[in-house]
Amino acid sequence: MAAALARLCLRGKPFGRPGSVPFSSGPPQAPGGLQEAEARLTRAWQEGGIRNIVLSNPLRRNALSLAMLKSLHKDLLREIDSTDLRVIIISGEGPVFSSGHDLKELSHETGGKYHQEVFETCAEVMTLLPKLPVPIIAKVNGLATAAGCQLVASCDIAVASEESKFATPGVNVGLFCSTPAVPLGRAVPRKVALEMLFTGEPITAQEALLHGLVSRVVLAEKLEDETLRIARRICENSRSVLALGKATFYKQMAQDVETAYRTASGVMVDNLALEDGQEGIEAFLRKRKPVWSQLGRKGSS
Amino acid sequence: MAAALARLCLRGKPFGRPGSVPFSSGPPQAPGGLQEAEARLTRAWQEGGIRNIVLSNPLRRNALSLAMLKSLHKDLLREIDSTDLRVIIISGEGPVFSSGHDLKELSHETGGKYHQEVFETCAEVMTLLPKLPVPIIAKVNGLATAAGCQLVASCDIAVASEESKFATPGVNVGLFCSTPAVPLGRAVPRKVALEMLFTGEPITAQEALLHGLVSRVVLAEKLEDETLRIARRICENSRSVLALGKATFYKQMAQDVETAYRTASGVMVDNLALEDGQEGIEAFLRKRKPVWSQLGRKGSS
Amino acid sequence: MAAALARLCLRGKPFGRPGSVPFSSGPPQAPGGLQEAEARLTRAWQEGGIRNIVLSNPLRRNALSLAMLKSLHKDLLREIDSTDLRVIIISGEGPVFSSGHDLKELSHETGGKYHQEVFETCAEVMTLLPKLPVPIIAKVNGLATAAGCQLVASCDIAVASEESKFATPGVNVGLFCSTPAVPLGRAVPRKVALEMLFTGEPITAQEALLHGLVSRVVLAEKLEDETLRIARRICENSRSVLALGKATFYKQMAQDVETAYRTASGVMVDNLALEDGQEGIEAFLRKRKPVWSQLGRKGSS
Repeated sequence: MAAALARLCLRGKPFGRPGSVPFSSGPPQAPGGLQEAEARLTRAWQEGGIRNIVLSNPLRRNALSLAMLKSLHKDLLREIDSTDLRVIIISGEGPVFSSGHDLKELSHETGGKYHQEVFETCAEVMTLLPKLPVPIIAKVNGLATAAGCQLVASCDIAVASEESKFATPGVNVGLFCSTPAVPLGRAVPRKVALEMLFTGEPITAQEALLHGLVSRVVLAEKLEDETLRIARRICENSRSVLALGKATFYKQMAQDVETAYRTASGVMVDNLALEDGQEGIEAFLRKRKPVWSQLGRKGSS
Repeated sequence: MAAALARLCLRGKPFGRPGSVPFSSGPPQAPGGLQEAEARLTRAWQEGGIRNIVLSNPLRRNALSLAMLKSLHKDLLREIDSTDLRVIIISGEGPVFSSGHDLKELSHETGGKYHQEVFETCAEVMTLLPKLPVPIIAKVNGLATAAGCQLVASCDIAVASEESKFATPGVNVGLFCSTPAVPLGRAVPRKVALEMLFTGEPITAQEALLHGLVSRVVLAEKLEDETLRIARRICENSRSVLALGKATFYKQMAQDVETAYRTASGVMVDNLALEDGQEGIEAFLRKRKPVWSQLGRKGSS
Repeated sequence: MAAALARLCLRGKPFGRPGSVPFSSGPPQAPGGLQEAEARLTRAWQEGGIRNIVLSNPLRRNALSLAMLKSLHKDLLREIDSTDLRVIIISGEGPVFSSGHDLKELSHETGGKYHQEVFETCAEVMTLLPKLPVPIIAKVNGLATAAGCQLVASCDIAVASEESKFATPGVNVGLFCSTPAVPLGRAVPRKVALEMLFTGEPITAQEALLHGLVSRVVLAEKLEDETLRIARRICENSRSVLALGKATFYKQMAQDVETAYRTASGVMVDNLALEDGQEGIEAFLRKRKPVWSQLGRKGSS
């Protein structure tokens, strides 16, 4: 767990060459050295199965501009099927996790067609998260508003510092947070969602926990450790089993209960037929640690 | 915010004549002066965009009799499209918010056809609330039981005093709260709803907050101020944007996630094309206060 | 309420002969005396309308083996339409409520067909609970994991001791808790469910209450009293009214709101036409205690 099994920097250098670039923890560098046409607004690196993606435009409060959304999309999907990747953590640089859409991009000048592209790209990123084969954790240290709050709501797991706040204040600038309301309304009770949406006022991290928007709240100084602890706990499990389990969860949750049980019961049998399914049961019965395959191939049964 | 922009009394006088009748805060007056055949069981007035509707039959614990339901229905719909109206607050006079249906009306004598009318009218009022173009706030100071609890559950937002209690005790008198269970079961976790429904026992305001039935709990002496503060916060926003946002919220929540995003993304583009959508973004970018149109007309784009 | 109206032992003797066998509170007896081919892994008895079913294989942490599931299924359904039965309490013997499936039964040796039978039988028991005409209470004193957690999530009501914990740790042995996730994902917020499912880590009883998995948490020494208090409160109500109300609740919750109201409004009229519906209203209006029919026959209207 301690050693850097696959220390990759996803920014500015070809992804996938281990150890080629050390983890850069500073502010986003100038895009001069990039091979790509567009500037990267996210930083990403991977270590010990854990991919960190950091929204890195703190001067713009990590606004989810079209470029930022595309950069995030790219970092999420890159070598997504690599067995080296086991879990993704999304965080924000600076005191704001993300302030949502860049309102400059939504002015009268840019026009309806551009607005449409922004919202469609945003929806594409948000709905991609549940489809990815690894768990996605939002690590929230600070304010998450509008589409930033939507991003938190769209992750599988969310850990927040005590000081974090969550809001959907679009209504205050005449743009009701209708797209953020899609995952928000499915995460918290309706009355809480509507009070947030109608007034634009923030809720605290504790309220977010109480109402189900985040799964865990810790002191700011423990945020990194606690998030890593959860990520490492996930890394101890089988990648193929997690992938099957995550996909099944979202599938059955969209079904009625009877259908959901048919789906899930069938998957349980399939899970047991996986190499890692057999290994896990075998190891448990023999009271030893399981040794997971990295590939999740079908077992021999 | 301070001045009475449109001080209307909805009771006993033609609605819509500003200043014609002062706000009557006393007990419900004798219905002698009313033009209408039936006695009004609600009092209503409007001021600064905020319409207050008070269930005003404290001697009958504000029972939702057929007449009370019709009176409430009328007060909700009256000049509902007036741009002077921005938010509605529903409260109850006396120590009970509402005790639910009037059991006298549900006896063997009144008969099945009458019972049907009662429940259909009730469902009509409850399902009307999410369809109204302005936010509806329940201000709960005291006990809300059966259809009274259903009314709280059916509002967009609910603010309750610490002493308030919520129950669905119909089962204790042989009439299971099946209709209250429709919004209750969608507001609180299933186990909480079923314990309330099977035993008839009340939950406290804090439990109601914990479980999502209300969005805010305050000391009784702050209930009026806190509710007004939320209502005024809502009044600062654009009516047309709120109307579009509220309608979209309920629409997309009834859809699967992918469809919900298509609905909401389209609405975001439409929202930006509204006069108030353009004004809001413009004002934000120029760092000035937005000036909303009262009409929510389509913008020039 | 105090007297044993119908003290039945469901284990080893013909069910339904009152007083024939006293309540056995000790460890599970050897199955020698049983008429049935298979050993019973549950103990059950009925008293004052309350049927207790106890998972009684503490040495195997009350694992939900195929035999245990079948035993539970039998105890649930036995004379289920008897008007002597008013409520069912499910609990576990020893410090573990239930540890879920017996992993010995899910090894490579038993094979896919057997695995399928296990999961189908489990799903049958879990989906049976909401269909039963009486309320089902889980009384949880200790750990409930995997299918044991699923059983808690599937009951109508759950009361837990402070020390209880809940987990879905299948992922740790390579078998993702996909079937437990069906009721878990519908009981708690998505992020809480996914953190439990991805890490296998337990939540406390207080967290279970906060997130809606249980409806009540009490000190261990009060668990028995509090559960019985709720059960007795349920017994004071009409069996036929509870049966109609429970069936309607689950039916309408699977419908959209408009359809749900049509369903529930129709049921309210039917409820009033029940003998107990008329008796309840009549008793309320005359300020006397209602006397319920035991049969739930249609009234005379």
